[in-house]
Amino acid sequence: MPDYPSFTLSTIGIIHSCYKEKFGIPRQPGLVTESTARLELIPPYNRLDTLEGLSNFSHIWVQFIFHACLTEKWKAKVRPPRLGGKEKLGVFSTRATHRPNPIGLSVIKIGRIYQEDKKVFIDLYGADLLDGTPVLDIKPYLPYADSIPNSKGGFAPTPTQTKNVLFSAEAKSQCEHYENLHNREITTLIKQIIEQDPRPSYLSEQIDREHGITLWDVNIKWCARNDHLEILRIEYK
Amino acid sequence: MPDYPSFTLSTIGIIHSCYKEKFGIPRQPGLVTESTARLELIPPYNRLDTLEGLSNFSHIWVQFIFHACLTEKWKAKVRPPRLGGKEKLGVFSTRATHRPNPIGLSVIKIGRIYQEDKKVFIDLYGADLLDGTPVLDIKPYLPYADSIPNSKGGFAPTPTQTKNVLFSAEAKSQCEHYENLHNREITTLIKQIIEQDPRPSYLSEQIDREHGITLWDVNIKWCARNDHLEILRIEYK
Repeated sequence: MPDYPSFTLSTIGIIHSCYKEKFGIPRQPGLVTESTARLELIPPYNRLDTLEGLSNFSHIWVQFIFHACLTEKWKAKVRPPRLGGKEKLGVFSTRATHRPNPIGLSVIKIGRIYQEDKKVFIDLYGADLLDGTPVLDIKPYLPYADSIPNSKGGFAPTPTQTKNVLFSAEAKSQCEHYENLHNREITTLIKQIIEQDPRPSYLSEQIDREHGITLWDVNIKWCARNDHLEILRIEYK
Repeated sequence: MPDYPSFTLSTIGIIHSCYKEKFGIPRQPGLVTESTARLELIPPYNRLDTLEGLSNFSHIWVQFIFHACLTEKWKAKVRPPRLGGKEKLGVFSTRATHRPNPIGLSVIKIGRIYQEDKKVFIDLYGADLLDGTPVLDIKPYLPYADSIPNSKGGFAPTPTQTKNVLFSAEAKSQCEHYENLHNREITTLIKQIIEQDPRPSYLSEQIDREHGITLWDVNIKWCARNDHLEILRIEYK
């Protein structure tokens, strides 16, 4: 048998994001358009000239490491949440985070590209990336090559149906207070995250059980009711 | 400054392709639909169950190593062939093969998924991958998430205009002979590759200069004329 090589790849950038833990991160980019993040290029890549021309594109591919999944081993078959956690598929037929090489791939809308002190940043919209994610590469999205008409989407042909989200009076007033304090649109962000119903499938039947999702410096407390998901309150960490 | 980690990633598969050298490989996948290749999963990933469910998708993302570009260093700015080799852009604003981490990304149409002896293969259509390319990961293409309407394509908003290709009488008869012998549609493959005009920009003004491109076991000899590209003959290696 021939000897197949391994490759050592370095971090070129780090993600700064509102998602402080895996639970709550949307399952694909672009679903939670209100989530804001930024990519910081680290030395020696922290140079604006490496990004010259990028502002003429609207999206980039981000190839990154699932750094919070490094200790677990790959399995040949996994249970995609889209199938309710009941059916198993081959790991390479899914975008599961636990895979032979822990590399992720997300297409993300970009905004301002700028320098602050000696740091170089790209603003990201709708990113599905954990805070601190190490990035291996970015490439421009090429509509004519990357957007494929009539491609077949297997078990995930369309986005998940979103659920109805209601805020308690307490949560509503806390969100307003937070927005006045931080100038950050957290009500819409919370709504967009929770309407995806981020609960793992084994909890998806449980009503009135309290869940928490950490965003920035707050913990969002919420639960499922019979016909909607309810934001209970937000707690400062 | 914090210490940023490196990551060692292993080969999960190897590409078997008609492209035996970098010159002639189309600049994006999908342009040369007639090119056939296959991905072989290597041990311990050579198991059909890792691919269960994949046949319900039409395309996969292949994350791979530019293994023929490992010795060269990255540069902050590069000259994309699409801009005629005259203008420089930031390396991260392009899909240049020489980049800080030599990882490539191609979306490729898939066909049959099968086992032969203890080997597991996926047939690929329109791949732009050099023979022997080490693959790090494959993921299903998700139309609803990966196909982005109204995305902005920077310096490459549309495919390159193809050029007119003519075959000499000798080349035409050699191709027919090859097709009878190998049951492989080489005439269309050659036409699709050459009509992209794979010449580097510094040679793009030269008329009547002979070029060669190795495909499978033959060398395609061709040259540019005033108003078309001409296939001269094919030579066995």
